[in-house]
Amino acid sequence: MTTTLHWVRTPEFTRICDGITDPYDRTRAFAALSRINTLYMIVRAGSGHLGSSFSAADIVAHLHLHEMRAPFEEGGDLYFSSKGHDAPGLYASLIGLGALDEGLTHALRRIDGLPGHPDVGTPHMPFNTGSLGMGISKAKGLILADRLHGRGRRVHVLTGDGELQEGQNWEALAGAVHHGMHELTVIVDHNKIQSDTWVSRVSDLGDLEAKFRSFGWGVVRCDGNDPMELESAFRKRADSFPDGPGVIIADTVKGAGCRTFAATTSMREGEHMYRYHSGAPSRADYEAAHAELVDSVNELLLRHGQEPLALTSVEHEPVPAPRAAARRLPQVYGEALAELAGRDPRVVALDADLVLDTGLIPFSEQFPERFFEFGIAEQDMVSAAGGLAAGGAVPFVHSFSCFLHSRPNEQIYNNATEGRRVVYAGSLAGLLPAAPGHSHQAVRDISALGAVPGLLILEPANADEVRSAVDFCATSQESVYLRLVSAPVRAEVDALPTVPLSVGRGHVVRRGGRTVAIGSGPVVLAQLLGAAELLAADGIDLTVVNLPWLNRVDPAWLAGLAEGADTLTVVENHYTHGGQADTVSRALLEAGLPAMPRFRGLGLSEVPRCGTEAEALAAHSLDSASLAAALCSGAPTH
Amino acid sequence: MTTTLHWVRTPEFTRICDGITDPYDRTRAFAALSRINTLYMIVRAGSGHLGSSFSAADIVAHLHLHEMRAPFEEGGDLYFSSKGHDAPGLYASLIGLGALDEGLTHALRRIDGLPGHPDVGTPHMPFNTGSLGMGISKAKGLILADRLHGRGRRVHVLTGDGELQEGQNWEALAGAVHHGMHELTVIVDHNKIQSDTWVSRVSDLGDLEAKFRSFGWGVVRCDGNDPMELESAFRKRADSFPDGPGVIIADTVKGAGCRTFAATTSMREGEHMYRYHSGAPSRADYEAAHAELVDSVNELLLRHGQEPLALTSVEHEPVPAPRAAARRLPQVYGEALAELAGRDPRVVALDADLVLDTGLIPFSEQFPERFFEFGIAEQDMVSAAGGLAAGGAVPFVHSFSCFLHSRPNEQIYNNATEGRRVVYAGSLAGLLPAAPGHSHQAVRDISALGAVPGLLILEPANADEVRSAVDFCATSQESVYLRLVSAPVRAEVDALPTVPLSVGRGHVVRRGGRTVAIGSGPVVLAQLLGAAELLAADGIDLTVVNLPWLNRVDPAWLAGLAEGADTLTVVENHYTHGGQADTVSRALLEAGLPAMPRFRGLGLSEVPRCGTEAEALAAHSLDSASLAAALCSGAPTH
Repeated sequence: MTTTLHWVRTPEFTRICDGITDPYDRTRAFAALSRINTLYMIVRAGSGHLGSSFSAADIVAHLHLHEMRAPFEEGGDLYFSSKGHDAPGLYASLIGLGALDEGLTHALRRIDGLPGHPDVGTPHMPFNTGSLGMGISKAKGLILADRLHGRGRRVHVLTGDGELQEGQNWEALAGAVHHGMHELTVIVDHNKIQSDTWVSRVSDLGDLEAKFRSFGWGVVRCDGNDPMELESAFRKRADSFPDGPGVIIADTVKGAGCRTFAATTSMREGEHMYRYHSGAPSRADYEAAHAELVDSVNELLLRHGQEPLALTSVEHEPVPAPRAAARRLPQVYGEALAELAGRDPRVVALDADLVLDTGLIPFSEQFPERFFEFGIAEQDMVSAAGGLAAGGAVPFVHSFSCFLHSRPNEQIYNNATEGRRVVYAGSLAGLLPAAPGHSHQAVRDISALGAVPGLLILEPANADEVRSAVDFCATSQESVYLRLVSAPVRAEVDALPTVPLSVGRGHVVRRGGRTVAIGSGPVVLAQLLGAAELLAADGIDLTVVNLPWLNRVDPAWLAGLAEGADTLTVVENHYTHGGQADTVSRALLEAGLPAMPRFRGLGLSEVPRCGTEAEALAAHSLDSASLAAALCSGAPTH
Repeated sequence: MTTTLHWVRTPEFTRICDGITDPYDRTRAFAALSRINTLYMIVRAGSGHLGSSFSAADIVAHLHLHEMRAPFEEGGDLYFSSKGHDAPGLYASLIGLGALDEGLTHALRRIDGLPGHPDVGTPHMPFNTGSLGMGISKAKGLILADRLHGRGRRVHVLTGDGELQEGQNWEALAGAVHHGMHELTVIVDHNKIQSDTWVSRVSDLGDLEAKFRSFGWGVVRCDGNDPMELESAFRKRADSFPDGPGVIIADTVKGAGCRTFAATTSMREGEHMYRYHSGAPSRADYEAAHAELVDSVNELLLRHGQEPLALTSVEHEPVPAPRAAARRLPQVYGEALAELAGRDPRVVALDADLVLDTGLIPFSEQFPERFFEFGIAEQDMVSAAGGLAAGGAVPFVHSFSCFLHSRPNEQIYNNATEGRRVVYAGSLAGLLPAAPGHSHQAVRDISALGAVPGLLILEPANADEVRSAVDFCATSQESVYLRLVSAPVRAEVDALPTVPLSVGRGHVVRRGGRTVAIGSGPVVLAQLLGAAELLAADGIDLTVVNLPWLNRVDPAWLAGLAEGADTLTVVENHYTHGGQADTVSRALLEAGLPAMPRFRGLGLSEVPRCGTEAEALAAHSLDSASLAAALCSGAPTH
């Protein structure tokens, strides 16, 4: 269904800013224009962090219009977002300032466009962010380099408030004091709401001012949605703390700038979850918010004797989604986990601020006494899981795969060396969805955890296999890393028959000839089944095997499979190095078969691209057509 | 050279404690006895953390003699050390209390004995520690489990002060407040000196009391080497903060209890480095300290009308070391790095409190403006390296391999996705030395980082190859993880001729027949050369290949090597999964050779054992004899 959307062109930003002489009203108008475009970009992309972009919009506007010296120029002051979730708002502001091409307004979360989280491939993005808690450290490194080169620019870093739950922030503070980093100002976008809900409910920050002060930082506090307060806060930061690092704790409202999304109005009494973290708003919400923002700009323009806002309209046709199972795998997982917890009182669940995305709502509601929320503190969570296991519990630990395999990597290993039985459930695994960008695309998890002793990595392909996987975890003597794809499961994969799980063994999901492809999970299996259709037209009868075990393979089973194969290809939703293809090839070679099939592993050979699902699959040659072409080469035709 | 050492048997601890009714003097006597045995254990083992054990001895004594309810009993109060570096002192105390078998006194850092850092395989060690900063999180998990089971025991966790530089500690604090964890008491062994030198020089902790208070914890401070002050501190903690977590900041002296090692006397004016972090003291220091400790016990005994201390004597013969090159690889590396920095002003060095062990002394002295000390804050250090690289520097990042590949795993990946060129130099790589225990034995680093895009993993085998590796890093377009073995290099490996480095290609270091073994680094090559000698006696002429590239192999070079091989074995100083054997087998299989050699990978299949070098190699079947036996099976004799 086509709808009409509206956006503001860069020259219109310029006209309006030039026409408003009052600096505070100029900031207000600029921020409102940025919000209009942010809204447009997110609706067009179908996702994006709206609440976080809106809360920060006035800070970004004030910094770029008034505070920073020569932003975007060589040697000029630098600003970047450590939280990175406010990317659409930042892009919209930079487009308004003419620092990014306005054509990119239409390319949020698209390939060769603007990634879901900031990436150095985009102009004026000094760092990749979206992985939380790294920004202060990066700024420190940059300042140390600047000093070696005699550069004196100031560096402004925006952090979230939920982001401060990450220990790395607190690691980073001491060094900035030691080096007297007067160049460094951190602005905390203190909007009080993190991914799921109120920060205070997730993991209360306590007295934030006292914390920063106790670490030796200069602290200023202000209303971060008020341009006048922002101005005086930055002045106070410079005047009161000229010799060291300073933090401005900017009290903001998530979704600020329009009533539709502002947290205080959009989170009603008794409501637990903020609805505008990263999803696109409804059509009605879009229209209401857009109208409200346009009104606020026009009111300012009228007051300053300027012509009303000129919008540019675009017809928008949402991309139709492929046929998919109704429920995502993390949701199925969450229901199965709650069922298991009903049977086994030892089961506890640990979360890092992602109950919505890891399927934990049923568990947290049914077993509140066994549900532990750690906030964005994955290292703490994983070590605490070790403590819970030591105390007799069976912990299930949750986060996005991208964070869960890497941030607490040493802690997972430590639990393993203690022989604790822990289940790690990482959702959002793999290349898809590709819209958030590579900080959220977990394609290195098999490698990073594959050698942890006593840890099995298991990727279920559909709802039935997810339920089997949870049952397996309930009784397994080994720890398990559950690799859960959050992208929709195609109906044909959801319909695949159930086969009991047996460690290291796979099963044929499409019986064909001696051209054999191994894969796991809903993304690869869907593309392989699609490739099989394409190959059938060329007379090649592809055999597709689901091997859900990613770091273990049964040599006898594999030998049997290899005997029936002329070519054997492992296709992975992961870097081609360090994953299932390595495990399979090692086992094949050590099996010493009399005749070896031709072998190949296919997966990602470069950092995952941001884009739609189709764009990302094609870019990495993992779509059906590319796979068919790759499988075709050298395969015998029947 | 045989020497006589002295220790105190468990019954003598009991006699002395029973004979001293004054509780403070009893603590003093117990702590002194523990120190006598700690000293004995470390001298006998040849290494161990003396200063850290001595600073904590009075705390451990007070807790176990007075504070804890029913320690070692089911449901009794629990104590553990998060820093773990004070393991010898803890073992000595537990042996004195009869909680560990006194025979273990002679088995520090030996196989089936007492590991260099605490491990759950030893009675009354609830957690594996030595990996820093995990203890508070683990205690929280245990307390959550206790509450589910209706257990009310108290948990006491000892942390170091340097350890508090790790961000995970600060991640962990909020949750303890949220859950009102009155059961949890953290004691900070605030001895002011971390691995290298004064904490304040490394990364000053600032106002530690204010920090804990700002995170909502109850804070008490006391002299941690004074039993009376300890008693009142624990009372105050219980009385003043009955409803939440509490911390006792115990001011102590590293090496407390005897003048020989006490930091205030043993670190002279102008002296930069503490000499008793983990090495064994000299013979003279041993004798002086032992005499001093015995005197202090006897003084107490005399005052309480008891017989003097009865010591047990043991003849001690240090194990002779194998012929080895004079300098360790990290030292050679450090000199080469300083030379490089002289030529290339972009080179900067980052350290995490291990200048002594990573070879950074020359660099830090010659280029202080380009040397950045981060303290025990690996995540901060690695992200800052990304910032330095963004600012035009070429950062060389240093820590022990065990920490460097795992603690900042996500940060290393983030740098890679930005395309930054960073060199990570991890010393103490691999199984050896095996005395510190598995927290310090990095045998999972190749796997954990192997799939990071644009990151080469390189393990030089001897001094010449280290210098070549540094030169390679200076010009490489890719980032490099340098895997530096700290164990002594055998003379025969040090004498191997220099061959220019070429990515993915190895070279023959012993030309033999068609039984071919690939390895890298000084440990594996030494054992393979030894195995070749043994096999020669059986008529098997082993070809030994040095392939220093651990996650990359040149297919053409490998195909050439495979053509000349009937059997090809990859031997690794790493888990057998996820390392070089996987990379080689994948490349071999994809090469599709007409005749494939028999292939096998050998490496660790379980968590590394603690012990002497010989013990650990034999335990994991990586010694020459085991390798010869493995390589023999199926090899053709000539």
